[in-house]
Amino acid sequence: MSIIDRRDFLKGGAGAAMALTGLSPNILKGQDDRMVRVGVIGVGGRGRSLLRLMLRRSDTLVSAICDIEAEAIQQSLDMINEAGATIPEQYLGGEEGFRDLVQRDDLDAVIIATPWRWHTEMAVAGMQAGKAVGVEVPAAVTIQECWDLVNTSEQTGMPCMIMENVCYRRDVMTVLNMVRQGLFGELIHCQGGYQHDLRAIKFQPGAEFGPGARGEAVWRTHHSITRNGELYPTHGMGPISKCLDINTGNRFVTLTSTATKSRGLHKYVLAQGGEDHPNANVRFELGDVVTTVIKCANGETIMLSHDTNLPRPYSLNFRVQGTNGIWMSDNRSIYLEGISPEPHHWEPFSNYSDQYDHPLWKRYTAESEGAGHGGMDFFVVHAFIESVKRQVPPPIDVYDAASWSVISPLSERSIATGSSPQHFPDFTRGEWSRRASSFAFTDEF
Amino acid sequence: MSIIDRRDFLKGGAGAAMALTGLSPNILKGQDDRMVRVGVIGVGGRGRSLLRLMLRRSDTLVSAICDIEAEAIQQSLDMINEAGATIPEQYLGGEEGFRDLVQRDDLDAVIIATPWRWHTEMAVAGMQAGKAVGVEVPAAVTIQECWDLVNTSEQTGMPCMIMENVCYRRDVMTVLNMVRQGLFGELIHCQGGYQHDLRAIKFQPGAEFGPGARGEAVWRTHHSITRNGELYPTHGMGPISKCLDINTGNRFVTLTSTATKSRGLHKYVLAQGGEDHPNANVRFELGDVVTTVIKCANGETIMLSHDTNLPRPYSLNFRVQGTNGIWMSDNRSIYLEGISPEPHHWEPFSNYSDQYDHPLWKRYTAESEGAGHGGMDFFVVHAFIESVKRQVPPPIDVYDAASWSVISPLSERSIATGSSPQHFPDFTRGEWSRRASSFAFTDEF
Repeated sequence: MSIIDRRDFLKGGAGAAMALTGLSPNILKGQDDRMVRVGVIGVGGRGRSLLRLMLRRSDTLVSAICDIEAEAIQQSLDMINEAGATIPEQYLGGEEGFRDLVQRDDLDAVIIATPWRWHTEMAVAGMQAGKAVGVEVPAAVTIQECWDLVNTSEQTGMPCMIMENVCYRRDVMTVLNMVRQGLFGELIHCQGGYQHDLRAIKFQPGAEFGPGARGEAVWRTHHSITRNGELYPTHGMGPISKCLDINTGNRFVTLTSTATKSRGLHKYVLAQGGEDHPNANVRFELGDVVTTVIKCANGETIMLSHDTNLPRPYSLNFRVQGTNGIWMSDNRSIYLEGISPEPHHWEPFSNYSDQYDHPLWKRYTAESEGAGHGGMDFFVVHAFIESVKRQVPPPIDVYDAASWSVISPLSERSIATGSSPQHFPDFTRGEWSRRASSFAFTDEF
Repeated sequence: MSIIDRRDFLKGGAGAAMALTGLSPNILKGQDDRMVRVGVIGVGGRGRSLLRLMLRRSDTLVSAICDIEAEAIQQSLDMINEAGATIPEQYLGGEEGFRDLVQRDDLDAVIIATPWRWHTEMAVAGMQAGKAVGVEVPAAVTIQECWDLVNTSEQTGMPCMIMENVCYRRDVMTVLNMVRQGLFGELIHCQGGYQHDLRAIKFQPGAEFGPGARGEAVWRTHHSITRNGELYPTHGMGPISKCLDINTGNRFVTLTSTATKSRGLHKYVLAQGGEDHPNANVRFELGDVVTTVIKCANGETIMLSHDTNLPRPYSLNFRVQGTNGIWMSDNRSIYLEGISPEPHHWEPFSNYSDQYDHPLWKRYTAESEGAGHGGMDFFVVHAFIESVKRQVPPPIDVYDAASWSVISPLSERSIATGSSPQHFPDFTRGEWSRRASSFAFTDEF
């Protein structure tokens, strides 16, 4: 039997008011043991990585898992067996199997780690079934889907956290800590992006993609064929957004996007499969480099670079710049006027790593060891589970999910119209200037 | 008596045809000694720096100098005396004094190093008087001025070289060399900009600017009060433009610009002069960081960052990225697929510095020593003088001057209209796809 009493937060519009005012949805009401029961939808590579982190927690029980691939289910079960954990119920009912999972009355939350096109549909179904939702990035791929997430969360009172792990990268949390202590002065300009050579992920094995291919090549490559835009904004935007208090005192107002020609993927297909390979005829819409510039209500700008089709070292392109100084990730350097020893000269960012290490990282260094992506995956799972357990809004919420994810469709529209500026919807309906951030102000989660 | 026979290139439209077809204007016709006679308009800090380089040359005679400041003239004369060179005639006739200088019939060329607002007017007067013109950056500040330069050059047949020294920076010439040898593959995306903390230049002494202030603060700061845009694009754009064959097979098509709020200059005035300083009430239009994205006819994009009001280390923000690899200046690193030792990892750019050092630098290393800005000033003066002496079009020409300089007014217009895309005029009138570059293909100039 569920530990959530759904009746409480499906009554009238109370949920909407709670979501906007920062009150918690009524999860786990009256429970003592504070065990969070989770269903995981999508247990491919990413889903199992999150599953593994939940198996390490004494406050989390994975009660149900769902996938369309029997092999993914089996690998999950092997992992769960190995961990000595309770075997969850398995849902393998095709693409609509998740609908049965979300209806279980013993779940507090669902985590969604499926191909992008399913994120919103599953998150909406989860919230409508009274579950707290943690959804992988991006949370949505169309403007309408972004609104669907917000509307559903407000109507049901259920939280929807976008599981943006890079918000918890150690260096960006150190920088956030320094921003909040005023070391950069008033913020002026930030940069982020997703500069990651995905060619061997978009094609595997060889020059293959689509049904029958492996891993993300089964579905992810399709987006490069049909869409031209900033397709993956959240890794770069999550941390920047938290530095700039987006949706909590600030908001995105407009963006422009400009795409280069598309050369990298076709060239890779030729190199891997030869000129006679059937995929040599595929036309890729996605420009190799997409540059997006966003203007914020408080006057800052953000530049995002999406760059996934060319040979290049990995970089999320971070820069945080204010009236007192600047940090850049690519050269691992920082300059703070009056503090850095030599005027106009970079110093190593590592000079500040210890002193301004975020309290969360100080506290949970040991727990994060071995977690994915340099430890940051621990923190995003931790934040989701703790917010559900404590019945408080997640520190990265449905307004973040919508305003970060909407960058993609707005970017596509800008490119399609010759880089014309696109206005962001205000998903908070005017509340952005009054809302308060709950992201990482303590060492708790 | 002039060594140029003006009658030859003022006949009908021959000049225009020559300029477009790459034929040389008829400078120094029939001369044996190949001594180039130059007048310098503006012998402030920048002008004297160029003057000093010409005094080192045995093929150049500075016959006339012009300035509105007696002190600048005197410092120039001291320098010329010290070099044991012939004393030039001096023009100190107020703001219109340059008109007398350009009318001298013993000059082959004029070099213009005055405040920006005079560049086009003086360049036009120089060309109309039958002189080859070398003009400092930017060559123009309005769209009409850009056209004035092009029209005048075509009508008179006189060349106009924009003296963009960064085109000759050693690392960017190495990269250009590598681009031309195909190491980056097909170019896709480039970056440049002008990231230079100019606060102590815009205000000197203390919080002062305008008449009575010192150095560039006399005039440069005014642009930050009245204009919001990419005010200084050519240092970043020059080298990128040469890599991308702009105006010689490629061209800029559109740009968008987005500016941050303006905080840095006001804050600096308060810090230097206090809240009661009269300049504490000055409102600065220029956003602290202006981001411009340009789309090229051949499908590449260029991102420019203008960032002159905040404390930060100097950087021209260079990136050159193609289908085979990427170079970035900020981390002094490069990655070339199949060549760099470790896949997906940067290697130091210095690994390539010797092997791909540009022939010009190899040949003129000794001559460039002690020249300004790390030696590159030698090369830009060398290129101008050699092109005049050899009666060939300059390697950086009036179409470069116009298309690089027009970025500023287009950027201002984009910002003023909410980052709307702006179309570049085609200053070559359709010839861009047929024109050939003459920039730095040999070790000569």
